[in-house]
Amino acid sequence: MIQEGGQGGEQPVLRLDLALVHYPVCNKNGETIGSAVTNLDLHDIARAGRTFGIDTLYIVTPFADQQALVRDILAHWQTGHGATYNPKRKEALALVRLCHDLAELYELVQAKWRQRPTVLATSAKAQANQLDFTEARRRIFSGEPHLILFGTGWGMAPEVFAEVDALLPPIVGLGEYNHLSVRSAAAIVLDRVSGIH
Amino acid sequence: MIQEGGQGGEQPVLRLDLALVHYPVCNKNGETIGSAVTNLDLHDIARAGRTFGIDTLYIVTPFADQQALVRDILAHWQTGHGATYNPKRKEALALVRLCHDLAELYELVQAKWRQRPTVLATSAKAQANQLDFTEARRRIFSGEPHLILFGTGWGMAPEVFAEVDALLPPIVGLGEYNHLSVRSAAAIVLDRVSGIH
Repeated sequence: MIQEGGQGGEQPVLRLDLALVHYPVCNKNGETIGSAVTNLDLHDIARAGRTFGIDTLYIVTPFADQQALVRDILAHWQTGHGATYNPKRKEALALVRLCHDLAELYELVQAKWRQRPTVLATSAKAQANQLDFTEARRRIFSGEPHLILFGTGWGMAPEVFAEVDALLPPIVGLGEYNHLSVRSAAAIVLDRVSGIH
Repeated sequence: MIQEGGQGGEQPVLRLDLALVHYPVCNKNGETIGSAVTNLDLHDIARAGRTFGIDTLYIVTPFADQQALVRDILAHWQTGHGATYNPKRKEALALVRLCHDLAELYELVQAKWRQRPTVLATSAKAQANQLDFTEARRRIFSGEPHLILFGTGWGMAPEVFAEVDALLPPIVGLGEYNHLSVRSAAAIVLDRVSGIH
């Protein structure tokens, strides 16, 4: 059912979803908060997701005003002026779905695949229970459903990590500094788990 | 002089610069224009650049109002409220320098390294004169100065490609779609040429 990219000339159909979590996340003091939705997060991560063949990008926020903002952005690019101005953007943003909280996210994804996905969290800090990118790639390309969580603000709250199956390693570069935007981190994670280079 | 990451415990000192080009670039109809500066381009690419050990991120724009915008952003994060609110952002944005056009860019970089850098362009479309990421990584880690150009808008104008030494391959994923943001593309290119995974 799944073909590796480039092997058979057909695009592999991955059962891979991403979620961008706005609650519960940490602020800079480590307190649990809900963060605001950033317009370019939706664009950048949807475009990267479309490039690397994910199924859905879930935007997780319980706040009605933030959900309305997401709906406005999607409407502009799906049916408004943006849809004709830039159809490639429409194609990417078609991957986006809103959901209220992590409980609803897990229910939606499990219902879609008719089985529980493996849930992988991302963090800028190294934590126990890490799965390296090579093994993550092998599992994702095996065709089993996987859901990768990305946090906004200063990262997801500790209780999120307690309930996931594993963590992907932090993206580290050549030194100590690893303060990437979530947009950059998501792009690199997708490139690494796809392994096309 | 140059140590590979992780070999000696010290961070390698790369002579690697990035430039984000706002003129001359294409609009969606292929006409040459100057594009507006996007705030998050500076943040995201500077943060990724700091993570992967580049020397400088040059912002190329000839427009006085756009240069003023860049100076305002830098001032906020270097000496204004942002500097104390988020010192990690200050550290990343310290890599940013403004320059007027490509001629000035090439002069500045050559004067800094006291030799002409190898200039590599990036494009979402495959073109002749490509250098693959493995070879680009080998050359960059050899310690020779390299400058990687990224275009905004719908990509750099054809005359830019005519004067570079080589192009890096487009970032392609699992299918035909490769409309990444320049922020995502820069993050992936830095990760690939660093080869740390």
